[in-house]
Amino acid sequence: MTKSFGYAAPEKKATLEPFAFERRAVGPNDILIEIQFCGVCHSDIHQVNDDWGGSIYPMVPGHEIVGRVAEVGANVEKFKEGDTAGVGCMVDSCRRCASCEAGLEQFCAVHTALTYNGTEMDETTPTFGGYSTNIVVDESFALKISPEQNLAAVAPLLCAGITTYSPLKRFDIKHGSKVGIVGLGGLGHMGVKFAVAMGADVTVFSTSPTKEEDARKLGAQHFVVTKEPGALEPLASQFDFILDTVSAPHDLNVYLELLKYNGALVLVGIPGEPAAVLAPLLVMRQRNLTGSAIGGIPETQEMLDYCAAKNIVSDIEMIGIDAIARAYERTVKGDVRYRFVIDIASLKSIAANVG
Amino acid sequence: MTKSFGYAAPEKKATLEPFAFERRAVGPNDILIEIQFCGVCHSDIHQVNDDWGGSIYPMVPGHEIVGRVAEVGANVEKFKEGDTAGVGCMVDSCRRCASCEAGLEQFCAVHTALTYNGTEMDETTPTFGGYSTNIVVDESFALKISPEQNLAAVAPLLCAGITTYSPLKRFDIKHGSKVGIVGLGGLGHMGVKFAVAMGADVTVFSTSPTKEEDARKLGAQHFVVTKEPGALEPLASQFDFILDTVSAPHDLNVYLELLKYNGALVLVGIPGEPAAVLAPLLVMRQRNLTGSAIGGIPETQEMLDYCAAKNIVSDIEMIGIDAIARAYERTVKGDVRYRFVIDIASLKSIAANVG
Repeated sequence: MTKSFGYAAPEKKATLEPFAFERRAVGPNDILIEIQFCGVCHSDIHQVNDDWGGSIYPMVPGHEIVGRVAEVGANVEKFKEGDTAGVGCMVDSCRRCASCEAGLEQFCAVHTALTYNGTEMDETTPTFGGYSTNIVVDESFALKISPEQNLAAVAPLLCAGITTYSPLKRFDIKHGSKVGIVGLGGLGHMGVKFAVAMGADVTVFSTSPTKEEDARKLGAQHFVVTKEPGALEPLASQFDFILDTVSAPHDLNVYLELLKYNGALVLVGIPGEPAAVLAPLLVMRQRNLTGSAIGGIPETQEMLDYCAAKNIVSDIEMIGIDAIARAYERTVKGDVRYRFVIDIASLKSIAANVG
Repeated sequence: MTKSFGYAAPEKKATLEPFAFERRAVGPNDILIEIQFCGVCHSDIHQVNDDWGGSIYPMVPGHEIVGRVAEVGANVEKFKEGDTAGVGCMVDSCRRCASCEAGLEQFCAVHTALTYNGTEMDETTPTFGGYSTNIVVDESFALKISPEQNLAAVAPLLCAGITTYSPLKRFDIKHGSKVGIVGLGGLGHMGVKFAVAMGADVTVFSTSPTKEEDARKLGAQHFVVTKEPGALEPLASQFDFILDTVSAPHDLNVYLELLKYNGALVLVGIPGEPAAVLAPLLVMRQRNLTGSAIGGIPETQEMLDYCAAKNIVSDIEMIGIDAIARAYERTVKGDVRYRFVIDIASLKSIAANVG
């Protein structure tokens, strides 16, 4: 077995606390990653709090993982010791169903082994995430990371990055595309960076006028304060694509109305309540309402390579693991620009003291 | 001017009655069509009743028009006297905007002149539809009709046909596609015919078990009575495409759940109330909810040519104009298999008697 040390929620809504545990021994197809950085995703908080039901405790959150390959199994081809590797939201899937064969492991027909708060392919053994010193993962679910980039700022790409990159690629966003990004948070700020890099004309929609300066620094050409009466009306039927990153319940119809013929509104946040959709907005101009869920392993690698080539990373605030409770509070309030990343060195020193 | 005679609603919700009126003189780009048949679309009833607001009276309904070309203007190239021609939901548009240039005149940025209950491009002169003895229309908005087919049964193609053909083509339905059709009425029965002709595996979803025999005669391989508890559960995530032809408010989520990865639920009916959509159904499997509105002139001609080649027409019940009130009552109850078509000869004899 492989000794690991992390921070875990012992039960629903509990404060995270030090947690010593074991991972499997490094198998022939596995790599052992000494984790250097792990991003804090808003979904970590939802799962610790069991907001979506079915949470498994103790829970070691974290699915935006970057680190150094410390050991490789006998059959491993993609990595060697000393390489930089990443792990995102998944650590395994059946690899045989139509979804897996299409590189869409997140929609595996059998079982997707989520990186934490999930189970391995036996559907019994719990998985533990990246708020920990190391992880053992099949090389097929590990991503190659360029060591040239700021690795702490690369970590959020593993979830926030692929979640926003994938729908922009699906709808073929390119020079001349008119793109809207609703909400400027962890997901939204990555959406702006990608859309700008792809050459689009980008408008940020936000309830918060204080974010205009940031939106423009990120490259957005336009900024709209959505709560200003009448702000959206002049923009009717102008957008090819709108990425909606807001999880709180809100009116989708105001954004549907901004789409051109055959334009798409893509949800990546999941409001807890049903959205009231006006069918005439879909029928007239044949607008599309759809959603997107992370991305498969091949597309995640493509995104990381794209980011390395274009020098795209997340804007982050680095924290030590001891600041995680405060970071959760600030994330819930949207008070982070734009992603907390845990320096896992802080965890290693606690592990050394404990053990 | 051109003398015409039709049946009109003098005011909101009124019974249709004989109505003598004039159309414009045949201009250099116009053709005069002596109407032979006109289909009865459910939307005729909604507009007579002003269900959608803004109705213009007196109103001569009818936008499923087939007839014989009786006169052509000096510049007309597409038609000659004696040809068979059709008119659908539109009689003009700006012809210069991006939508018009893309052959999507129904989404003209300036003004779409609807065939009735609309106005000409001056946005003042009212338009009168096909419950009438003749129509004068610019040749660009007239469709060529094969005289080989049953012309009465061709008439509904001009609205019910293009409304269902267009989304099937947009989503590239072909051999091997798994298609669902929700509702077996005027639109639904055409959807089944087209999907079957395109080689799809077709399932009809209906609340009415009595329609199974018809569904199978139309070529559907499967029939599901949606009100049977548990009937939909085994079909989760199986469909590439579902065409929803139901206008009454109903739960869209049950159909979204039947879609595969990247599958599409297309609304062609317009429920009057907002639909409550569960975002997780869109996010997981990246399903699409969209709508479709008739089709442009080029695609309408393509559909008519396709129907002529494949010998596809609507299933109809022919009526005289004197039976229109009863036909409206039966259409509202869904008691028609599957489209009433007015034999305009019946109107001509009344016109002759009136004088």
